[in-house]
Amino acid sequence: MIDDSPRQSALNAPEGVPKAVVNRLSLYLRELQQLTRAGLETTSSTRLGELLGLTGAQIRKDLAYFGQFGYPGIGYRCHELIDQIRNILGTSHTWPVALVGVGNLGRALLRYKGFSLRGFEVVAVFDVDHNVVGSEVEGIPVFHVDELADVMRQRQIRLAIVAVPAAAAQKAADRLVEAGVEGILNFAPVTLSLPANVTTVGVDLAIELEQLSFAVVNRNENA
Amino acid sequence: MIDDSPRQSALNAPEGVPKAVVNRLSLYLRELQQLTRAGLETTSSTRLGELLGLTGAQIRKDLAYFGQFGYPGIGYRCHELIDQIRNILGTSHTWPVALVGVGNLGRALLRYKGFSLRGFEVVAVFDVDHNVVGSEVEGIPVFHVDELADVMRQRQIRLAIVAVPAAAAQKAADRLVEAGVEGILNFAPVTLSLPANVTTVGVDLAIELEQLSFAVVNRNENA
Repeated sequence: MIDDSPRQSALNAPEGVPKAVVNRLSLYLRELQQLTRAGLETTSSTRLGELLGLTGAQIRKDLAYFGQFGYPGIGYRCHELIDQIRNILGTSHTWPVALVGVGNLGRALLRYKGFSLRGFEVVAVFDVDHNVVGSEVEGIPVFHVDELADVMRQRQIRLAIVAVPAAAAQKAADRLVEAGVEGILNFAPVTLSLPANVTTVGVDLAIELEQLSFAVVNRNENA
Repeated sequence: MIDDSPRQSALNAPEGVPKAVVNRLSLYLRELQQLTRAGLETTSSTRLGELLGLTGAQIRKDLAYFGQFGYPGIGYRCHELIDQIRNILGTSHTWPVALVGVGNLGRALLRYKGFSLRGFEVVAVFDVDHNVVGSEVEGIPVFHVDELADVMRQRQIRLAIVAVPAAAAQKAADRLVEAGVEGILNFAPVTLSLPANVTTVGVDLAIELEQLSFAVVNRNENA
């Protein structure tokens, strides 16, 4: 999820497009894919809005940032809008992704089937543990982090997932930066220091729970 | 992370406090905890800002939503500000948390040590798989989902983590709602339909990668 904090999500949306809009595009895409799996060929902003708890006007306004979509009297052709949103998000082609850290979380991420459907494929895993380096995990080869630059260049990897312990995260990020990474999804609960030309999105699970806690506590107080 | 989309994070911050501010509070807390672990007793908004890529003024403005903090000539006493922020976030006392779904992701979450430090403890796990129900995973007892209401009442559980496959997520959420849950952290890549009095924060890992993709693609186009 995207917010205005510097580290949890240091996205720079193109001029004029709020980050919340880009985040909702992902939700529209997810919902459209579910509709097509259910066999629907067309939908409307009203229907999509109902599924997402939004108004149709909000959806039309969000999409209007990127052009004109849909047809009078028909609505949106699901497959077409899926292609268009993937094109906007940059996921029309599959991104090869590096995973750094093959501990519990790393393994869980490798087993997660949801990435490929949405245009991401982990093609290389990196670790420093000689017990796993040289092996395969979930069918993906595990390299030593010393090989980052070579493997990333060979496999044209631009995005990486960091799933190492907090104490190792900055070093992993530094190595990724040296190897030319352009975007990092960081699961370590630390603030990474990165050059301005590297984008980072952070997922700190404790922070998610804290936000939930705050909402629950304050809802009860206000009730 | 928190955004304005309806499902990824349906938080309702108290009147007048932007969600981004609450999210940054979590970042301040995380950074302050790191400072105290490093042995520091006091810090300043300027120093905190440097660590987080923010201005000191931003930090002072954020904190001002909740009262007055810090001392002239001293700055913030780290332990005191930690206590104050935890109080604001509602994490002064540890929340007992339920985890629904003990697949790969659920197990990774159970092994994650970062929750307890920040005031969350998974005290009960729920699943439908009779191979795990009745056993313990990472020392936490696994119950059948039919026991949700009883166990949640006994253990005073108000927050839950949903880590089941997409197709099972709404049903899991429905059961949690019946059992009186107040907040759900949802890892399933689906839009949950929940009553207004239940708060949800969603973490869809593919969406995080999509946001990264968008930023990388557009940065390059704009460069």
